Amino acid sequence: MMANKILQLLEEQNLRAVREETLKMNYVDLEQLLEEMPQDKMLVVFRMLPKETAAEVFAEMDSEYQQFLVEAMTDDEVAGIVDRLYMDDTVDLVEEMPANVVKKVLRNTDETKRKIINQILNYPEDCAGSIMTTEFVDLKKEMSAGDALEHIRKTGMNKETIDTCYVIDGQRKLEGEVTIRKLILSRPDESVKALMDANVKSVQTLMDKEDAAYLFRKYNLVSMPVVDMENRLVGIITADDVIDVIEQENTEDFHKMAAMTPSEQEYLKTNVFVLAKNRIIWLLVLMVSATLTGYIIRHYEATLSQVVALTAYIPVLMDTGGNAGSQSSTMIIRSLALNELGFRNIFGVIWKEFRVGVITAAILAVVNLLRILIFDRVGIWIALTVCGSMFCIVITAKVVGGMLPILAERLHMDPVIMASPLITTIVDTVSLLIYFAFATTLLGIA
Amino acid sequence: MMANKILQLLEEQNLRAVREETLKMNYVDLEQLLEEMPQDKMLVVFRMLPKETAAEVFAEMDSEYQQFLVEAMTDDEVAGIVDRLYMDDTVDLVEEMPANVVKKVLRNTDETKRKIINQILNYPEDCAGSIMTTEFVDLKKEMSAGDALEHIRKTGMNKETIDTCYVIDGQRKLEGEVTIRKLILSRPDESVKALMDANVKSVQTLMDKEDAAYLFRKYNLVSMPVVDMENRLVGIITADDVIDVIEQENTEDFHKMAAMTPSEQEYLKTNVFVLAKNRIIWLLVLMVSATLTGYIIRHYEATLSQVVALTAYIPVLMDTGGNAGSQSSTMIIRSLALNELGFRNIFGVIWKEFRVGVITAAILAVVNLLRILIFDRVGIWIALTVCGSMFCIVITAKVVGGMLPILAERLHMDPVIMASPLITTIVDTVSLLIYFAFATTLLGIA
Repeated sequence: MMANKILQLLEEQNLRAVREETLKMNYVDLEQLLEEMPQDKMLVVFRMLPKETAAEVFAEMDSEYQQFLVEAMTDDEVAGIVDRLYMDDTVDLVEEMPANVVKKVLRNTDETKRKIINQILNYPEDCAGSIMTTEFVDLKKEMSAGDALEHIRKTGMNKETIDTCYVIDGQRKLEGEVTIRKLILSRPDESVKALMDANVKSVQTLMDKEDAAYLFRKYNLVSMPVVDMENRLVGIITADDVIDVIEQENTEDFHKMAAMTPSEQEYLKTNVFVLAKNRIIWLLVLMVSATLTGYIIRHYEATLSQVVALTAYIPVLMDTGGNAGSQSSTMIIRSLALNELGFRNIFGVIWKEFRVGVITAAILAVVNLLRILIFDRVGIWIALTVCGSMFCIVITAKVVGGMLPILAERLHMDPVIMASPLITTIVDTVSLLIYFAFATTLLGIA
Repeated sequence: MMANKILQLLEEQNLRAVREETLKMNYVDLEQLLEEMPQDKMLVVFRMLPKETAAEVFAEMDSEYQQFLVEAMTDDEVAGIVDRLYMDDTVDLVEEMPANVVKKVLRNTDETKRKIINQILNYPEDCAGSIMTTEFVDLKKEMSAGDALEHIRKTGMNKETIDTCYVIDGQRKLEGEVTIRKLILSRPDESVKALMDANVKSVQTLMDKEDAAYLFRKYNLVSMPVVDMENRLVGIITADDVIDVIEQENTEDFHKMAAMTPSEQEYLKTNVFVLAKNRIIWLLVLMVSATLTGYIIRHYEATLSQVVALTAYIPVLMDTGGNAGSQSSTMIIRSLALNELGFRNIFGVIWKEFRVGVITAAILAVVNLLRILIFDRVGIWIALTVCGSMFCIVITAKVVGGMLPILAERLHMDPVIMASPLITTIVDTVSLLIYFAFATTLLGIA
């Protein structure tokens, strides 16, 4: 809509109006607008943006558009953009561009920044160092509040946040933090040492970024310092990075729970072969393990051929067991992810799931019994076989579903992968064994 | 561990050491420490904390501990705590306490704050108004940067953030925002009007809090103004609230995806009957709908009794179909939740899922065919029946799984609830129909 309006104005050569329209827009909306336009027009509009806005818009863009712009721009223009990017955005850019584009970017980056980029690029993708930014305000504890504010005035313009400033010693070791609020509200001659909080929560560069996000959330932070092995301050993590990590982690868990290799990109941008590759492995694993149920059925073929009616109840038993089990495993997996429970709680969980299992199993068995007796024309013993199995299957599924994720985590395996996709197969197998045990006992067949 | 140390010190009447230990701790750690102690000791230690810290610790606590403390404290002590709580924490407190405790809290709250509490309590639980805080800095555009900083110095102490200040007119209507950075970095005589950004993203009090969190994330905000129907500024939302909303929403989606009514509390704190109640409804619904598969099987009983071997392949076909379908539905549900796609994409999704389906289905069918021919002693026609069905089932499951959540959202139903738990049942039914269609055609039986 907006894109059409801008294109119309471009058509009419009314560049002044284009400029006015874009000046009124938020950089995120501008970025969406540009991505909807043909590439040549996009370049025209991008070049009309004020430098600061252009850099913000550029940082928001998908890498394909960034690549196009870097290739289309002059060296001076590239330098103008890169110079205004936050360090973490520059690193993302360098990581995702092909070699020739990276070269053009680095050629237009100053020496110091290039060094820091190389350093950050060395951190593994899933650690705190990879999501930190290096633009923060550092103070010395010998400064007065007045000095500190003066220092912020001089250096604060390009920092990602000045809400919290960090206090370091001569070796850049982290000593404390002080909020800008405290600096403003205190007397100018008060020392930073007296104002700072020495009990500051920090993370190491190599800590898993999900653990860092967990600490950030636990301590309700707005920014968090990142230190190296010698406790030297090297960067900070801000709330927007943490929110991204949390959403990414949740997406991964959703995908793994549905037996997929997590996608790195949005669905619409992922091509069909990548999607197929991410899905086929678990489908194959689960298909092969599901054949186990086939072998159990064939083993009891004689039983089934004596009482053919039994076959009709296999799906409902397996489905209900699977649903009951995945309810429990999902609940426990989620609690593990939020650090609400751990291995110490395993017996508590088993006992709780057992009781929940008994209650739900009893209700399901009774409802099923009534349904069978009223609607299905089968004997009472078949009905009892089905419902007795239902009762035992649901309880087993609940206990196994509750226990499995905790055991997986204890064995340092991913509880989502180990427990969630496997639960159906495990419960299916157990369900059939229980069912046939009941059948051979209650119906007196073998 | 720490709790034992403190208890030991209390035992030795070494209150000075207790005070020193607690002074060194972060308020979140203190809160955990207190919850590990017996109630009488907890009260002793809580009373030793500095007032500011005590309020922070209190705000972090679970409601059962808050209740105990309010009941145990004098009116003066309660007033001291409540006075230092942020408005949103006070509202949470009032919402969760029983009537007599609420009375004690409100008795010790000043008139103005009481009015605001009542106002916030009127917002529905899931709207932006219910998570906002009313402590923010408001400026007038006529102020100079110097005036503004002076105003912040006078009033800023109890505001949740002063990083971004909001500019309002005489009727408290939102006119813009200005960061403290800009105020500090500019000349003192510069006007707020010239410094402020008039293009500010705000949400209405009654907007769904999940939508507010989405906008917050989309525009990379650190705080976001909340306005009433007349565009008057009434509060702000901060990143920590947004992170909580996101995690809560994700937990709900995980629970719903596993066919449960979402829990409001942590697993370990939820009692067995509530857990059972949250799970039983969907188990019953799915059990009853799964009986459909039973009817289909009984309808083809004659077919099955002619070729008993066919029974053994029912579970693997149903399971693989279910897995293939839930992969697709989960992926689409997650993309919908992140606003990455919508109804406009339905044909794109169907076409994509169809192609992914063909690729994965072909691989699964071929692997399965080989496995049957090598390991199972059944005829080629049975093998072809199973694998032909497998091929069609997987493709159908993928297309249905991709389409269902989008249709649900279009019909204003929750895609997680409508699509995810139901997908197994739908795919099971379709799988059996396809299987028996192949069996009657290829094997020439009826």
